[in-house]
Amino acid sequence: MLLVESMSNAKAYSTQSATSPLALATIKRREPTPHDVQIKILFCGVCHTDLHIARNDWKGSTYPVVPGHEIVGHVTGVGAHVKKFKVGDTVGVGCMVDSCRECDNCKEGFEQFCEKGAIFTYNAPDKHLGGMTFGGYSDSVVVDESYVLSIPKNLDLAAAAPLLCAGITTYSPLRHHGVSAGKKVGIVGLGGLGHMGVKLAKAFGAHVVVFTTSSHKTADALRLGADEVVNSKNADEMAKHASSFHFILDTVAAKHDINAYLQLLKRDGTLTQVGVPAEPLDVQVFNLILNRRSFTGSLIGGIAETQEMLDFCGQHNITSDIEIIPIQKINEAYERLLKSDVKYRFVIDMATLQ
Amino acid sequence: MLLVESMSNAKAYSTQSATSPLALATIKRREPTPHDVQIKILFCGVCHTDLHIARNDWKGSTYPVVPGHEIVGHVTGVGAHVKKFKVGDTVGVGCMVDSCRECDNCKEGFEQFCEKGAIFTYNAPDKHLGGMTFGGYSDSVVVDESYVLSIPKNLDLAAAAPLLCAGITTYSPLRHHGVSAGKKVGIVGLGGLGHMGVKLAKAFGAHVVVFTTSSHKTADALRLGADEVVNSKNADEMAKHASSFHFILDTVAAKHDINAYLQLLKRDGTLTQVGVPAEPLDVQVFNLILNRRSFTGSLIGGIAETQEMLDFCGQHNITSDIEIIPIQKINEAYERLLKSDVKYRFVIDMATLQ
Repeated sequence: MLLVESMSNAKAYSTQSATSPLALATIKRREPTPHDVQIKILFCGVCHTDLHIARNDWKGSTYPVVPGHEIVGHVTGVGAHVKKFKVGDTVGVGCMVDSCRECDNCKEGFEQFCEKGAIFTYNAPDKHLGGMTFGGYSDSVVVDESYVLSIPKNLDLAAAAPLLCAGITTYSPLRHHGVSAGKKVGIVGLGGLGHMGVKLAKAFGAHVVVFTTSSHKTADALRLGADEVVNSKNADEMAKHASSFHFILDTVAAKHDINAYLQLLKRDGTLTQVGVPAEPLDVQVFNLILNRRSFTGSLIGGIAETQEMLDFCGQHNITSDIEIIPIQKINEAYERLLKSDVKYRFVIDMATLQ
Repeated sequence: MLLVESMSNAKAYSTQSATSPLALATIKRREPTPHDVQIKILFCGVCHTDLHIARNDWKGSTYPVVPGHEIVGHVTGVGAHVKKFKVGDTVGVGCMVDSCRECDNCKEGFEQFCEKGAIFTYNAPDKHLGGMTFGGYSDSVVVDESYVLSIPKNLDLAAAAPLLCAGITTYSPLRHHGVSAGKKVGIVGLGGLGHMGVKLAKAFGAHVVVFTTSSHKTADALRLGADEVVNSKNADEMAKHASSFHFILDTVAAKHDINAYLQLLKRDGTLTQVGVPAEPLDVQVFNLILNRRSFTGSLIGGIAETQEMLDFCGQHNITSDIEIIPIQKINEAYERLLKSDVKYRFVIDMATLQ
């Protein structure tokens, strides 16, 4: 049952099919209901997921698609019952805009694992307007206050946008697995997720080792805070780190040899995958049995944890390394994304949409 | 550097090559050094690993091989400095007879993960006599007291023997992952390991679900303590249990569809593999990312934990379901093992060796 509500028009960049470019369109946004926050979008990060959904790589895309779930903006209106936000506040919206709020996962702060299915920021059923949710490649968005985050005042707003997905995706597993001073931590892959992983693991006090197959990334890894950089194609270099890591965060979304990394874990060490290869990874069980190693995954984070991450980033002045683009360059940016030609996150300046 | 010591002869069943049957042989055992315990072996369980090593399935076997690491017997002699045991005590020896005792893993009670390599009960370098260690298919064995276990007096000695490997292999992960009342726990495979997993998980108070592809095992699973039995070939039956398990212990040593079980784990649930398929298992990363599931392994347990397990089994009167065989039937037993034709562990009555 849809709520009948008043709507207004918004500008957005949307795609009509898996093979169409993103282009200017007019979409509907609901007028704020009593618990809603209306946001003027200032910046929106460009996540690889945006491209996957726009191009139906994972199937299940419903068109038109308006991508974008790394949203930062100003509050321009609030519903009558909104308590946490007021007009003028700087806020963010991440990967989720709603969930059932009643299941164990929701009640325990894991809305991303909502047992009825979290309502993602785009390409998820929109219970207010019907059709699918539209994301942040737009001049505005209306979101229930429970799924809106506060952005610390000291952070650069454009560079803060990627925290809403890349930031929480790396923060959550690093925190959950106790990354801290005295721990040796690996980050596999130095892209949008990986570079945030380096910054956060370093801020948590860990000894950070970056694994990369691109030797030209070494200097940058060190600049971002890595203590060591290992060329993962060099078996000798890898062997020197055997059974020495407390934790490894693997951000690689392509099929790769996970056993080479599992072997680097100490007893009770954990490798968490946040990149999601479409093909299965081949796991030699012996590598798990030896040293009682764990292979696990992690998906963004809950709303409360996302706020905790933002507050931590505010305290430690952590943001993403970004390249700001006008929205008219989004299709070109997608092509560059496919070539990993970005350091390390594109962020759309939404003023260019006007 | 080998210690020069006096030796005595012992009877054993050994194999001279990957394709030879096990046959009667005379082997050397050292005379007890000051910290050693000399044991008359009464019973020895038959673990699938015995067969793998005897037949060089995993490569690396050095012949002759005397298998056997589920040893129960009586102390017949002790070295001058032995404190924990005296002549006449009922003792056990499991998978290890030594380790470095100096590395972090040894010092923290994880001798099985000794960083210099645990000395396994057979087919490991014997620092006393040179050559390789000889296992429990023998009338006697000499072991450092630190690697000797006490067998609770109330347990049937033959049925207690499999606790030394099958028991600790299942006890350790069930305990480590907090299996207890209120937890829904799956046991995949109902063989030597699986049937111990059922008994132990039930003793810990969990709700126990057995997964099997052999419907004729249903009645036996229930008799052993299972609350439910699921035919893992039935997709509908499996789907009913989606995202509902706290923990799953997978004892299957052949390649199988691990994703079907990962999907059954709740948020933060863990699947621990104790069967070790030679081929890698294909893991769909999405199944780990969703619900933050863990895929992990476990290898026997440390010495202190093995004693804890034996004491627990003594308190709860838990032993293995066994079929006692004379040692002359060991080759036949191996053939039956390959067909899973045993409920649920062969145990050799070592009196038949005389």
